[in-house]
Amino acid sequence: MERITPRTLSGFMELLPGKQAKLEKMMAVLRDTYSLYGFAPLDTPAIEDAKILLAKGGGETEKQIYRFQKGDSDLALRFDLTVPLAKYVALHYNDLAFPFRRYQISKVYRGERAQRGRFREFYQADIDIIGDGKLDVLNEAEIPSIIYRVFRGFGLTRFQIRVNNRKILNGFYAMMGLTEKSGDIMRTVDKLDKIGGEKVQSILISDCGLTEQQAEEILRFISITGTNAQVLAALEGYAGREEMFDQGLAELRQVTEHLAAFGVPEENFAVDLTIARGLDYYTGTVYETTLLDHPEIGSVCSGGRYDNLAGYYTDKALPGVGISIGLTRLFYVLDEQGLLNPQLPSAPADALVLPMTEDPAPAIALSQTLRGAGVRVQLYGEKKKFKQKMSYADKLGVPYAVLLGEDEIAEGVCSVKNMVSGEQVKLSPEKAAQYILDGLSANNGPIILE
Amino acid sequence: MERITPRTLSGFMELLPGKQAKLEKMMAVLRDTYSLYGFAPLDTPAIEDAKILLAKGGGETEKQIYRFQKGDSDLALRFDLTVPLAKYVALHYNDLAFPFRRYQISKVYRGERAQRGRFREFYQADIDIIGDGKLDVLNEAEIPSIIYRVFRGFGLTRFQIRVNNRKILNGFYAMMGLTEKSGDIMRTVDKLDKIGGEKVQSILISDCGLTEQQAEEILRFISITGTNAQVLAALEGYAGREEMFDQGLAELRQVTEHLAAFGVPEENFAVDLTIARGLDYYTGTVYETTLLDHPEIGSVCSGGRYDNLAGYYTDKALPGVGISIGLTRLFYVLDEQGLLNPQLPSAPADALVLPMTEDPAPAIALSQTLRGAGVRVQLYGEKKKFKQKMSYADKLGVPYAVLLGEDEIAEGVCSVKNMVSGEQVKLSPEKAAQYILDGLSANNGPIILE
Repeated sequence: MERITPRTLSGFMELLPGKQAKLEKMMAVLRDTYSLYGFAPLDTPAIEDAKILLAKGGGETEKQIYRFQKGDSDLALRFDLTVPLAKYVALHYNDLAFPFRRYQISKVYRGERAQRGRFREFYQADIDIIGDGKLDVLNEAEIPSIIYRVFRGFGLTRFQIRVNNRKILNGFYAMMGLTEKSGDIMRTVDKLDKIGGEKVQSILISDCGLTEQQAEEILRFISITGTNAQVLAALEGYAGREEMFDQGLAELRQVTEHLAAFGVPEENFAVDLTIARGLDYYTGTVYETTLLDHPEIGSVCSGGRYDNLAGYYTDKALPGVGISIGLTRLFYVLDEQGLLNPQLPSAPADALVLPMTEDPAPAIALSQTLRGAGVRVQLYGEKKKFKQKMSYADKLGVPYAVLLGEDEIAEGVCSVKNMVSGEQVKLSPEKAAQYILDGLSANNGPIILE
Repeated sequence: MERITPRTLSGFMELLPGKQAKLEKMMAVLRDTYSLYGFAPLDTPAIEDAKILLAKGGGETEKQIYRFQKGDSDLALRFDLTVPLAKYVALHYNDLAFPFRRYQISKVYRGERAQRGRFREFYQADIDIIGDGKLDVLNEAEIPSIIYRVFRGFGLTRFQIRVNNRKILNGFYAMMGLTEKSGDIMRTVDKLDKIGGEKVQSILISDCGLTEQQAEEILRFISITGTNAQVLAALEGYAGREEMFDQGLAELRQVTEHLAAFGVPEENFAVDLTIARGLDYYTGTVYETTLLDHPEIGSVCSGGRYDNLAGYYTDKALPGVGISIGLTRLFYVLDEQGLLNPQLPSAPADALVLPMTEDPAPAIALSQTLRGAGVRVQLYGEKKKFKQKMSYADKLGVPYAVLLGEDEIAEGVCSVKNMVSGEQVKLSPEKAAQYILDGLSANNGPIILE
């Protein structure tokens, strides 16, 4: 038989079982948290009509998209989860109840140039709340609560949800008579973290055509910092001059006002006037989330309020608010930095049952009893020497080995060996199950370390 | 803005939220059951090097596969989960512990002619156990236990796992001097359920070139029926003449012998000599699963033992055993036949919290308390009339609405309305959470009806 050297395409993440187990735990946190806030899981096709995906057209998207013919069809792989959502809501409008809340954790595809830490296939974990015509700002106020619970679920405490409102920025630029340049200004200011204030100021002057005074005033404005109350008070000083600004400020007040009721500690939240999000798509509240000890990772959860989800597909006004977590990249970076908890059990089974007798029947029955109690059990069926069996248990990283020989069978017990401590106890099958489950829950640490 | 009519490609399943919730429940049963038996979740890329996927080449696969260029790369979407598994095991051989048990529930792609109930993108839910050089038959004996638990998890009792062994068939054909024709014979016999015995007999004679006597003898052999013990006893009559036959019979005995210990009731299992599985790939035990009251659906879970998983990618001998559930097709057929339990709660939230006061703070705090207890809560933020709020709760299909007005706030309670019975009670937030969770667990019926 002619052999082909096996390989996985570059830019495609393919994990070994131990790593995959950790990614699955992160996905479970996302699913559970999104569900707890009443989001419905959706699962749209990975392939869509290319015309649908490229409705907006232009730019990087068109270059990066995987597009191909099959028969007469012009097809493409989704490059995000927002465009398919827009299509879904427009298409199924009459069957949905609005506000419509959905989450989707799915792979998206972008044929970018291969680069370390850049993926061509990657998971996005998105939530969106879509209104029919209107959507109350209370939904925007709830988003930080969801972000908070997700990252706490990952085991983190040292993170910050940074919030701003595009209306405040647009209103401020309008006060300065710079409305037409506000898109360019925001895209420039958005680079502040990366390139610093001086460079931003010089680009504002050279590329956006601002005067030195204007550039300075903008930098002074966005560098307003302090507690939420202090920032809001400082913004109050600009109020009453521009309607859009005042509306943005009122919305920002509403978003910050209920943080405590939503269970978000003050230290995990900051009003940050430098947050703009590059996209014109956003029209109100915008969110970014950073790991305080790892600012170099950038935002790990971003999103915002938009006014028009599906304008390319329907004349219905569909405002919404959503956030997205780039799960594959986040996982990759956490792993690179050694932040995935190495102590977290990641074996496929909690216990490996090792039959030590010719007849496997007692070991089968024991496995079933343990499974009945909720223990994930692998029954080892190979006829190997004891040493080889234990070395398999080691390689698998299974936390418990359960040995069943003639002696144990005669006594109606099994020997449970803790593979970390080496400790071994004889217990009835029912007690063994409890012993293992107790041990596992005691060892249930965070997914991510700080 | 120019509008494009939204559509989803034909052959691609896109579910409304209520249906999606039911599919998710089936996936959760699959994940939980596979995990309980110590299978590691894997997640290989949907896109692979076309050369890798087409290593075996030829036939329908090549016609159906989605294949495309991106830059210089010749890419394709996976058409099953077995070929990517073979690549994975060959590629990561040194990092895996054998036997290696993995499950994967992922979408695969086949550009078949569009046809009602045929999908171009569909989920397969596979498990495989891969040995390094050898794999004990005990693993084959365990498979029916896993199938049993999956379908019981779906809520079914009226199903049958039908098992045969290819060595018995091959051995029997060898006894008759028909070894070279055994592949053709098995593919013909495999159609028995669909076309009936007479037609099979005439094809065996006309197409496979058998004598009338040979064809009759084969049909007599495969029509041996009865309890497992009776079929095994009848097969014993053929023993001692052909080594492969004897080996197959010994394996079949081992697979049936431990059924009770593995928790599989006799009525959910049958030795069935008509099961052959068309593919040459299988070399030992083969499995099919049918819903007893819906034989027209065909096998809903199939698989078997094979000797050489990854011969196209490595010289390592990697025998294994696996099964696959075509989840998308199964779900579609169940839905078509009205077998998805309509009573099963499928709303995205367990409770819709409706603030009846201007200030949403008390309703926010209540939502957080309920979530803290594990209730999936949607907080309704829109400023609408009471009637519109209740009509939204109805449309969402949420089992409980929780009303919070001035009176409730003053009393420290909330009003919990059962949306099905209409019953309404005033309870403290903590008691409301318990009341809702109790109500939900009382209503936790099967996913599939019989």
